[in-house]
Amino acid sequence: MSRRRRNAARESKLPPPEDGEPRLSRASVGRFSLYLRHLQQFAREGLPTVSSGQLGLALGKTDVQVRKDLAYLGHLGQAGVGYQVQPLISALRHTLGIDREWKVAVAGVGNLARALLRYRGFGAQGFRIVALFDADAAKVGQSVDGLAVHAPADMTQVIADSGAELGIITVPSEAAQGVAEALAAAGIHGLMNFAPVVLRLPAHVSVINVDLAIQLEQLAFLVHLAASER
Amino acid sequence: MSRRRRNAARESKLPPPEDGEPRLSRASVGRFSLYLRHLQQFAREGLPTVSSGQLGLALGKTDVQVRKDLAYLGHLGQAGVGYQVQPLISALRHTLGIDREWKVAVAGVGNLARALLRYRGFGAQGFRIVALFDADAAKVGQSVDGLAVHAPADMTQVIADSGAELGIITVPSEAAQGVAEALAAAGIHGLMNFAPVVLRLPAHVSVINVDLAIQLEQLAFLVHLAASER
Repeated sequence: MSRRRRNAARESKLPPPEDGEPRLSRASVGRFSLYLRHLQQFAREGLPTVSSGQLGLALGKTDVQVRKDLAYLGHLGQAGVGYQVQPLISALRHTLGIDREWKVAVAGVGNLARALLRYRGFGAQGFRIVALFDADAAKVGQSVDGLAVHAPADMTQVIADSGAELGIITVPSEAAQGVAEALAAAGIHGLMNFAPVVLRLPAHVSVINVDLAIQLEQLAFLVHLAASER
Repeated sequence: MSRRRRNAARESKLPPPEDGEPRLSRASVGRFSLYLRHLQQFAREGLPTVSSGQLGLALGKTDVQVRKDLAYLGHLGQAGVGYQVQPLISALRHTLGIDREWKVAVAGVGNLARALLRYRGFGAQGFRIVALFDADAAKVGQSVDGLAVHAPADMTQVIADSGAELGIITVPSEAAQGVAEALAAAGIHGLMNFAPVVLRLPAHVSVINVDLAIQLEQLAFLVHLAASER
């Protein structure tokens, strides 16, 4: 299997095919994040327990599907009582690997990076942006929301010092591949890529692509489809 | 089926279950966008034709899967020749409903909105931001990248005048539901929501949620899984 093929496989199914049957599909991991969001909402509202029916209603699923999904986490539900909210939150965070802080480096300090720095959702889930990089000499040395902007040449040192494990790429498309390689070489294990290009990276580097134009295309398609059905 | 359930169904599968068998899954529509990206890259490189094998290599799929996906578009491939790049691009754009311009309104003029205004990927795919709204009186009347910021009270008029059909929500979580309802009431048919909340809207309004913390959670999970396998 080529590196390119394996990277793509890595992105669409977990673990990669050569490791045998997937234990968890990407889709079910995505659902765990959604369960977590709704449970955190229930916790804020002061609910100690929640039924599979309530969770199903919130997520647009049947209670059977909810029980099946959550069975993966162990025997946490009790007939007639439901799930205790806080232990279920803890189990989901543990399974997702976010029962600890993840430090994040951002490459490309433009409006998107500034928006991400102020995005409260990251901090709430344990993600902390600890390092900024930009190739623009005019930006290097500046401080953005209390964080210094570093030159790409200092990446290895800054990432080692900061403890960043994840990287977010917000540079223009033409720079993305080079920046991704530099981040990987500097010790970053996972990349969230906003540039609308397909990155080619060693198999040990995980990549999540967030192509906003693709998301908007999906939305246009939904609206187009709804209009053609009227 | 409750409104809530139907909205959720609408988001996960197309068309909604009550309309019978889905013709296209959300996943295959997502793949069409990816095919389109790669074909546009091939076109920029001057390739007149492309084989299912080349497309498969680019997307990490087998040539059989590629031919199966693209068969939905009609008989566009030729044995021994492959697909003509430009006609295939046209067919994909037509199927996705993006063979025309879509006008977009953005509610919430912060760093994310500024980033989206300058995001070249939108214009390249036919999306044009034509209206901005913000509840902050200090921002109303200002011009951002040549576009005036309007007050929410003027939403219906501004959206009618601008021809916007899609909306992007970049307001804080606590304001998102109200803003979504206002946009829908003002005639917007589809919403791209960046606020990490589940919107409750009439079934005729399509919603795509872009929860960046969930994307980062997925990435953390991939890295966590890879580390636990080492």
